[in-house]
Amino acid sequence: MKRILFVALAWFISLPVLAQHDHEHAGGRVITFPDTDQYLSLTCDFHIHSVFSDGSVWPSVRVDEAHRDGLDCLAITEHLEYQPHIDDIPHPDRNRAYDIAARTAGESDLIVIRGSEITRSLPYGHANSIFIQDANPLLQDDAEDAYAEAASQGGFTFINHPNWTSQRKDGIARLEPEQLALIERGEIGGIEVVNDLTFSDEALELALKYDLTIIGTSDIHGLVDWQYEIADGGHRPITIVFAEEKTQESIQAALEAGRTAAYYLDTLVGKEEYVLPLVEASLLLSSQGYIGDTTVLNVTIENVSDAWFTVKNVSDYRFHDRADLLSIPPHHAVSFDVKTLERRTDISLSFDVLNVVTAPGVHPQVALRATIEQ
Amino acid sequence: MKRILFVALAWFISLPVLAQHDHEHAGGRVITFPDTDQYLSLTCDFHIHSVFSDGSVWPSVRVDEAHRDGLDCLAITEHLEYQPHIDDIPHPDRNRAYDIAARTAGESDLIVIRGSEITRSLPYGHANSIFIQDANPLLQDDAEDAYAEAASQGGFTFINHPNWTSQRKDGIARLEPEQLALIERGEIGGIEVVNDLTFSDEALELALKYDLTIIGTSDIHGLVDWQYEIADGGHRPITIVFAEEKTQESIQAALEAGRTAAYYLDTLVGKEEYVLPLVEASLLLSSQGYIGDTTVLNVTIENVSDAWFTVKNVSDYRFHDRADLLSIPPHHAVSFDVKTLERRTDISLSFDVLNVVTAPGVHPQVALRATIEQ
Amino acid sequence: MKRILFVALAWFISLPVLAQHDHEHAGGRVITFPDTDQYLSLTCDFHIHSVFSDGSVWPSVRVDEAHRDGLDCLAITEHLEYQPHIDDIPHPDRNRAYDIAARTAGESDLIVIRGSEITRSLPYGHANSIFIQDANPLLQDDAEDAYAEAASQGGFTFINHPNWTSQRKDGIARLEPEQLALIERGEIGGIEVVNDLTFSDEALELALKYDLTIIGTSDIHGLVDWQYEIADGGHRPITIVFAEEKTQESIQAALEAGRTAAYYLDTLVGKEEYVLPLVEASLLLSSQGYIGDTTVLNVTIENVSDAWFTVKNVSDYRFHDRADLLSIPPHHAVSFDVKTLERRTDISLSFDVLNVVTAPGVHPQVALRATIEQ
Amino acid sequence: MKRILFVALAWFISLPVLAQHDHEHAGGRVITFPDTDQYLSLTCDFHIHSVFSDGSVWPSVRVDEAHRDGLDCLAITEHLEYQPHIDDIPHPDRNRAYDIAARTAGESDLIVIRGSEITRSLPYGHANSIFIQDANPLLQDDAEDAYAEAASQGGFTFINHPNWTSQRKDGIARLEPEQLALIERGEIGGIEVVNDLTFSDEALELALKYDLTIIGTSDIHGLVDWQYEIADGGHRPITIVFAEEKTQESIQAALEAGRTAAYYLDTLVGKEEYVLPLVEASLLLSSQGYIGDTTVLNVTIENVSDAWFTVKNVSDYRFHDRADLLSIPPHHAVSFDVKTLERRTDISLSFDVLNVVTAPGVHPQVALRATIEQ
Repeated sequence: MKRILFVALAWFISLPVLAQHDHEHAGGRVITFPDTDQYLSLTCDFHIHSVFSDGSVWPSVRVDEAHRDGLDCLAITEHLEYQPHIDDIPHPDRNRAYDIAARTAGESDLIVIRGSEITRSLPYGHANSIFIQDANPLLQDDAEDAYAEAASQGGFTFINHPNWTSQRKDGIARLEPEQLALIERGEIGGIEVVNDLTFSDEALELALKYDLTIIGTSDIHGLVDWQYEIADGGHRPITIVFAEEKTQESIQAALEAGRTAAYYLDTLVGKEEYVLPLVEASLLLSSQGYIGDTTVLNVTIENVSDAWFTVKNVSDYRFHDRADLLSIPPHHAVSFDVKTLERRTDISLSFDVLNVVTAPGVHPQVALRATIEQ
Repeated sequence: MKRILFVALAWFISLPVLAQHDHEHAGGRVITFPDTDQYLSLTCDFHIHSVFSDGSVWPSVRVDEAHRDGLDCLAITEHLEYQPHIDDIPHPDRNRAYDIAARTAGESDLIVIRGSEITRSLPYGHANSIFIQDANPLLQDDAEDAYAEAASQGGFTFINHPNWTSQRKDGIARLEPEQLALIERGEIGGIEVVNDLTFSDEALELALKYDLTIIGTSDIHGLVDWQYEIADGGHRPITIVFAEEKTQESIQAALEAGRTAAYYLDTLVGKEEYVLPLVEASLLLSSQGYIGDTTVLNVTIENVSDAWFTVKNVSDYRFHDRADLLSIPPHHAVSFDVKTLERRTDISLSFDVLNVVTAPGVHPQVALRATIEQ
Repeated sequence: MKRILFVALAWFISLPVLAQHDHEHAGGRVITFPDTDQYLSLTCDFHIHSVFSDGSVWPSVRVDEAHRDGLDCLAITEHLEYQPHIDDIPHPDRNRAYDIAARTAGESDLIVIRGSEITRSLPYGHANSIFIQDANPLLQDDAEDAYAEAASQGGFTFINHPNWTSQRKDGIARLEPEQLALIERGEIGGIEVVNDLTFSDEALELALKYDLTIIGTSDIHGLVDWQYEIADGGHRPITIVFAEEKTQESIQAALEAGRTAAYYLDTLVGKEEYVLPLVEASLLLSSQGYIGDTTVLNVTIENVSDAWFTVKNVSDYRFHDRADLLSIPPHHAVSFDVKTLERRTDISLSFDVLNVVTAPGVHPQVALRATIEQ
Repeated sequence: MKRILFVALAWFISLPVLAQHDHEHAGGRVITFPDTDQYLSLTCDFHIHSVFSDGSVWPSVRVDEAHRDGLDCLAITEHLEYQPHIDDIPHPDRNRAYDIAARTAGESDLIVIRGSEITRSLPYGHANSIFIQDANPLLQDDAEDAYAEAASQGGFTFINHPNWTSQRKDGIARLEPEQLALIERGEIGGIEVVNDLTFSDEALELALKYDLTIIGTSDIHGLVDWQYEIADGGHRPITIVFAEEKTQESIQAALEAGRTAAYYLDTLVGKEEYVLPLVEASLLLSSQGYIGDTTVLNVTIENVSDAWFTVKNVSDYRFHDRADLLSIPPHHAVSFDVKTLERRTDISLSFDVLNVVTAPGVHPQVALRATIEQ
């Protein structure tokens, strides 16, 4: 009864181009990171647009997108000075988008923050002020007055896309004297290291040099689903804020203290003191015990985060079933065997964490520990 | 007309455990590597078993599996001395499995090689002799006589799984004086650095120290589909042989010259002089030109191989849309942006290739070059 | 070397609920149907909303969505009388959304049609007038005047969602005397049998009884991607228009002649004379010849359409490798064996086409023919 | 910051050919059917081969495959008279394959049954005797003696592939006078309606006419994974036995009573009295209540079986969100809306079940009932 039933029709090979996201994410589009020992890990997007400046959706859609992405916090940051829809939407109140978004969010878990984008050419460039009280007074002739007003309202202001090729043809982030002065006066406290589909090593260097808070934002104008290819496993860039509580006040306090990481593609960018605890909370080592009467130990690393981790073994121990590179997809576990040479009761493994960046080209080392079931 | 139509039934989260293979492979189970500038890249499995020793399938199935995996070459290597099915299959001819497999392969593209596994306890351990003329005379009381007979037949002999925990409780590959003497006499020419689901850094060190050919094999006993989870994107371990022609003679010449790489999980293990040309043939850099009037260059790396490449940028240039880690799935292309600071006519990017191993913990550096479309 | 490497962590079973779409669609979100022998099969959505009435996106997004869905034609049909965003967008011109959409579409292949939704309570209910010249004069106190104005502008008007549970608690489509009078006067020419996520057998009966053109529309207010679960293989409901040319005039002529089918889920709803040629163009029978020396014929049906076809064999011939039900996914081919009892030179197979509806519970029969390769 | 980052490399379209299985099966390869009110639904394969006749695997592999498929029962049925491997495996005991398989199964949940295939040319053709005590005495010169011996051992014998094109060029199942005499004498009790990749309407007619038990088997010779494309969601054909207990005796009693269904592709073939309870146990109707203040009822049908159900509504009620065809994937639920015209406290829906066959072209009707949450 053996017979070939199948007709070979034409098969062609497809060669997909991956630009933004290298891997599909298990568990859908909700962006999930574990809390650290000390802080909540809140997922925040501090830079978005709606039809009330140059975006293409009603502010309510921004709230719906944030719900779908599982965000904890969203800032509404319309351009103050750039209003291409002004003829259709001549609303005089620069808080209007916030009001609609806040009403849409209602009693949900999403914190909606009032903000504005101060939109200037160089030397000031663009900057977002968030946690402000009223966007209207920020609309000033003189950029300095706008920054001062934001500061006087208790806002937190960060520099937007300092690597923007419309203002920097070489894509290199630089700070102008005017910006440095604002930093010195405390009127600028952060800088976007990640904006939309870009990452800037130089912005990271500036953040480290001037102790600016590291920010990652979507700067979304169109649809999040399209811009970040959600259907194919992509996600919007966000700032992970390490906060004591899930409140607007606590988020602001964390931003002012610099307790953040930018999350973009599968990369986490942050100061080592804040991003390393997140790695430790994300990668959970456990051991299932020795194999038979050998000194080869079976262990598992569970990745409970949304980032695809790529780590390189720098332990004293070598592995029995693979070389030194481990790739651990989000919300997956990887099981492997370690040659411990003697029977031990606990195990510590050290890895260079290559998808985590603490300075340009610098990746932190993490030590994962487990007791061994006897 | 808006209404929620969906009923939320129970959704549970699954947490898959990845042990063998981290990534799904595009393009099905056929294992594909590009030829290098100088050699063909032939996919070979030099260690398999059938019902004629302690395997569980008829030899014809090994040929069918090899066809499905797209192998160029398969060696039939039944245990000479270990014959658990002997009561059911009392065939006196140790070449019988080869004969059946060779007849099954017939005029197909698959090269089937005659071999045998010399199956001893330590200090000799297990070894495969391939390219022999007749397996029967290798069945000797004295292991030394078996090795000598294989050599006299023109065979190429390599050490099997020197890290085998049944013979090495710590999984550490070591060579006994008797084995070293065989190496010195030229009766052993290779060593398995990869066997089945194991990889051995120490076997790699021994290969480098004693100039042994690096071998990776499946040592399959059951079904390839099950053991290597083909349906989930896994593949059997193989030896990639860099041969001048697709002939048995050319494959043997390559093995004797040490021109191989072991391919296991997504890792390529080999001597730098042979594995680096394979990397260069696998990763193709091209440039789509500068973005607008900027000095930011869009480039693409196409991975035309079966291995998932993980590379780290060590170029003089930084990227505009990501940090330094690139993950390039098999048979996919990754597009990204490079800040070249000035407008150039060609581009060279250097990467540490982390999924390629030339010594324990050592990864080669590759330079990829492209001219820039103006 | 055999050993279990895998640790069984917890696996849970998920039970997805399918409400809208039963199957994933190959080939991405572009909705594709073959032309028939006589007409082009144009994919059209004649009912959409933007922020200029009660939708939540800028009109440009509707054009982007249409491009992604591969639509041939899109009508802009804001509510005339229902303007919940009027305080924010006090634009006096009811053509404004059309103007923006038409400018976005520009010179692309997408035909953008001017339209308006006349939005009344019963007995008039809602209706769309498309192909009008100017939406503003349709804004009348008396509904009759609005219909008359649309007619005087050369518009084509169809009844919207006659099954709408806000106006019909039982979901049963009915026509009021006032609507019947408009039909009689030629001021209503069509009826939505499919609207958003609903299908109405009774609307289909009314279309057949009063010779109204069968219309299927999305009536989209939010995002097409979300409402129709594009990422999971869903699609928006559309009207397939059988037109002589891809022009606005030709589409209008087809609508006035009743040459349409509604496409919703995997179902095609239409008058038999128009939908049957589409089935014949969608399902291509071919034969690969008889198997060996038997009278069993291997044939293939290729489905070149976007709909998942479910057909039941009512031929004189029975099948050798399956019972009478065939399920043919979009853009796939199904190969099977037919017992023809004697060797033939051609073959004709008849099927009841269960996913095509020509009247409530009525499915057309199609005969597929092929010559047999000898 | 808006810019197209993606380079469109070549995309080609693939057109897969589906021959065996139309749909992917959720929940992996384990074949699962619910028990009926009265019986256990046991999954059984009564026709397999190993290297001990003309198969290509050791009998242990058949047990491993059965475990992976989640079978309850497996019969070992080597050809008695056809022994192409006899020179390699000259074992004189025709029970040897059974002995190995039974030892492999050990104390597992899998019931392994002793059997043999009586392998003759017409008029006897092939037949399987299972539940025999000793295969050796069945090896007789005269086919009649073989059947008589099987009967005397208490075996249950069924006709194999009466539609086999090697014996019936037209693929039409027919019974010869000799077979009819054996049926009359009670020495044949069943008939394969499904064998390997074939289904026979005429075999079904013969089963109904002569009251033979309906059998579906794999008749596997190679690998189940390959022959039934397990990786792509296929499954082996089986017989579902409606037994009182999971014991060999209870299975034999069910076969003798004709309590079976053949499961092949997504089709269930059986006598209505036995297959209809399985449908009722597989499709679970529930109601989530009326939508708002309407008389439109939201209901869900959960398919807890392994078969993809295709059903056609023949209820008094019509649906609000679809036409009359429902496609319910295995281990999925479909939610839809029913227009009940008045508010009810319970609901009954009737469907023609198109993937269930009780006679050629005949599909049973099932009534699903639920109470409505108020």
